[in-house]
Amino acid sequence: MITIHSIEEIRLYVEQAKQRGETIGFVPTMGFLHEGHGSLIDHARGDHQQVIVSIFVNPLQFGPNEDFDRYPRDLPKDQAFCEARGVDVIFAPSAKVMYGEEGALTRIHVDALGDHLCGASRPGHFDGVATVVAKLFNIVQPHRAYFGKKDFQQLSIVKRLVKDLSIPVEIIGVDIVREADGLAKSSRNAYLTPEDRTVAPELQQTLKRIQAKVAEGASDLDQLMEAERSRLASFERIRIDYLTCVDLLQLQPIHKLDVGEEGVCAIAAFVGNTRLIDNILLTR
Amino acid sequence: MITIHSIEEIRLYVEQAKQRGETIGFVPTMGFLHEGHGSLIDHARGDHQQVIVSIFVNPLQFGPNEDFDRYPRDLPKDQAFCEARGVDVIFAPSAKVMYGEEGALTRIHVDALGDHLCGASRPGHFDGVATVVAKLFNIVQPHRAYFGKKDFQQLSIVKRLVKDLSIPVEIIGVDIVREADGLAKSSRNAYLTPEDRTVAPELQQTLKRIQAKVAEGASDLDQLMEAERSRLASFERIRIDYLTCVDLLQLQPIHKLDVGEEGVCAIAAFVGNTRLIDNILLTR
Repeated sequence: MITIHSIEEIRLYVEQAKQRGETIGFVPTMGFLHEGHGSLIDHARGDHQQVIVSIFVNPLQFGPNEDFDRYPRDLPKDQAFCEARGVDVIFAPSAKVMYGEEGALTRIHVDALGDHLCGASRPGHFDGVATVVAKLFNIVQPHRAYFGKKDFQQLSIVKRLVKDLSIPVEIIGVDIVREADGLAKSSRNAYLTPEDRTVAPELQQTLKRIQAKVAEGASDLDQLMEAERSRLASFERIRIDYLTCVDLLQLQPIHKLDVGEEGVCAIAAFVGNTRLIDNILLTR
Repeated sequence: MITIHSIEEIRLYVEQAKQRGETIGFVPTMGFLHEGHGSLIDHARGDHQQVIVSIFVNPLQFGPNEDFDRYPRDLPKDQAFCEARGVDVIFAPSAKVMYGEEGALTRIHVDALGDHLCGASRPGHFDGVATVVAKLFNIVQPHRAYFGKKDFQQLSIVKRLVKDLSIPVEIIGVDIVREADGLAKSSRNAYLTPEDRTVAPELQQTLKRIQAKVAEGASDLDQLMEAERSRLASFERIRIDYLTCVDLLQLQPIHKLDVGEEGVCAIAAFVGNTRLIDNILLTR
């Protein structure tokens, strides 16, 4: 396995692989890799001759008061993780390589899909995601790219971006990987204190209870969510950012679910000082 | 020469050409082709085995009160023009092929470069240009793409977009082609009445006078432009939208030019009911 830092070098690598008739599976990440990323890599490994993982903590997708500076980074550990997982190349550019000395002037915005949920709490976040993902696709030019369903809003936006701009790549969504107690794997779990960690599985518990009630026939989503908000209020370490049900196509808030309909229930909450997200599919 | 209307078909054509080791020169246009486009095609023809011209009047780059509906269109004439010029393929998609039934949610914005000049008079115009150009590049995947210097703000924005998003294409700017009396060739010249046509060369005359005075040592651009604005006010068929000097890098307004410095003087004006643009390089 090799680690490449420059755009020219990764392009040359990909060009040569394609000339040999090989296909490229791509896993874009911000590093500090865990089993969630591992699952993305495994899927790419099963499908392609070449697996490329990018590691880039993208400043464009962090707000001014967010955790860009303290976002966890550990390239040597990530390299060992990728090596053990059979990755061929890590692409780890600096911000200067990606955006130049004076920064980028170009931004990509995907309307509607980014308005609610994390888009409401993190203005500009998804523009930063869409911009860096398009740029990484243009650099790596993979056949397929793999994204986790934990960030399902991100996945929806990336799929739409690829469709709207006709980017020649296939987007694969991969199921959430969880700890034994149900907590979704996340690089930000590293921030959790032992006390935070104890209550963090409540996020998934909340979603599972709503899912179960909908499966049993409940249709009033607002009522179900209100009950769960009250329940979570009893945990002093947990502060809900949002708990919202949305449709699968445009991610617009929905309040009822008819028989046969589907939706997603999504949660974002601060557990201690750490903002975590999770989501679950609802089927009535 | 063939005309292709679908994204799948043009992709297949390009893929097969690349497999034969051929390179692709691309000329994106809105059709109603004239000698300006002809010059772009000639440059592409000289450089590449395959020359592809796209013809698409892009609704995204027209404002609600602009001339999208009446923009001149003549595909049979454009086909004859391209055939005579040695074009290999015309790509002429419909708006439905490009943006789907429900339209695109994705927009690309290039900051700063689009704020002044035509960006000020035509809000959203350059977002529409950047979005369609990126999409066309993703569809056609050319080695080089050719743009006229008449739309020098568009050319600057496309170059910046390509750099910022690492789009794998080289952008070539081609000199303005003019009528014998200096009027820059434009599809919109077709709108001009005989009376409009008589005074239309005044736009370039204005720019040339400013260029000459700067070359002779004049540094106060505002003063030069003010004199020309007064002069143009005497033509009742001409109404200035802007007459502005900008720097070459970020296209920000400049008011003075020191010895050895360069800038661009740009004009947009309605001649009768037709909005025309032109520009000239200033060197002191």
